[in-house]
Amino acid sequence: MSKVTCDMAMSLDGFVAGPNQSLENPLGEGAKECLHRWMFEEPERHTAVLEGITAAGAFIMGRNMFGPGRGAWDLDWSGWWGEEPPYHAPVFVLTRHPREPLTMKGGTTFFFVTDGIEAAMARAREAAGDSDVAVAGGAETVNQYLAAGLIDELRLHIAPVILGGGERLLDNLGSITLEPVGDPSGTSLVAHLTYRVIR
Amino acid sequence: MSKVTCDMAMSLDGFVAGPNQSLENPLGEGAKECLHRWMFEEPERHTAVLEGITAAGAFIMGRNMFGPGRGAWDLDWSGWWGEEPPYHAPVFVLTRHPREPLTMKGGTTFFFVTDGIEAAMARAREAAGDSDVAVAGGAETVNQYLAAGLIDELRLHIAPVILGGGERLLDNLGSITLEPVGDPSGTSLVAHLTYRVIR
Repeated sequence: MSKVTCDMAMSLDGFVAGPNQSLENPLGEGAKECLHRWMFEEPERHTAVLEGITAAGAFIMGRNMFGPGRGAWDLDWSGWWGEEPPYHAPVFVLTRHPREPLTMKGGTTFFFVTDGIEAAMARAREAAGDSDVAVAGGAETVNQYLAAGLIDELRLHIAPVILGGGERLLDNLGSITLEPVGDPSGTSLVAHLTYRVIR
Repeated sequence: MSKVTCDMAMSLDGFVAGPNQSLENPLGEGAKECLHRWMFEEPERHTAVLEGITAAGAFIMGRNMFGPGRGAWDLDWSGWWGEEPPYHAPVFVLTRHPREPLTMKGGTTFFFVTDGIEAAMARAREAAGDSDVAVAGGAETVNQYLAAGLIDELRLHIAPVILGGGERLLDNLGSITLEPVGDPSGTSLVAHLTYRVIR
């Protein structure tokens, strides 16, 4: 049966982005160089993990992950990822500002959902069919879905860095229980920890 | 050469004790059952880790780890650990309230240090001789020693639990760098992560 997954690269002190996010520095200060080193420097040692991150049939993300803008849309903005984003699937972007769908190269279409996280999940599930749905981030979006009991499998990728501030994951979740799936794995650049989420 | 170590059992959201610590519940709500399960349920799978925790020749702890009292001493209080504490070595307790040393069975003596974390470290180093010094906790004490650059090796033992509040480790550290020592290890009950701390 398909499930809802969530892969997050996190610092040891619990942040998924550093302080002062901006157009020039979308992950905030200090984060870009540290949180994802394992992906770029040793991808061959994390093949299964990387395949798991991109395997979903549909993705959900918060507006702040889609772009730096707030309020009314700048229609020239089409995401951080260039003409061919790495999703290759429908991506549902949570926002309070309606916008027409945006079709990119390579199979990615951004749909803008204005009626909340449950509606976005319903649309993503329908789009994904028998495939998994992935909640892609950022922290606030993931925290909301975890608190609502709508994520089945949380996969944390903990990097050996202390950011000291930024966007905190695993915050304001209420009472949720995590059941480990397998033992920790990884390398000196990252610890992979996978949990079934029970609410 | 001997070093200063620090072993801490931590929740996934970064707490080493839950909210509302008390005499009845020294680790706060929810923490006791979760953070240390691996120690009690499967000690044989963590032999080297457990030996590392108790190997030091001297220990340092904050007053709140020694007992629930604040302010002037209740001289009847001799720690949480009964007649024979598990340290079997000198333990230096940070406090602003002077107290005579307290000798327990099995080689543990509690010394009460009123002149700060550096003085306590100097005394612990001298007492340990060629052995390591361990900073035993709690969160505030460890954070102070990390921020001061006085811990050489940080060994985190991350349990699959979200506490949602309590005593937060890795907070207010300023700029410190962690260099992983080996790959992650552990079981479904705990991820062991070891870092050299560089300041």
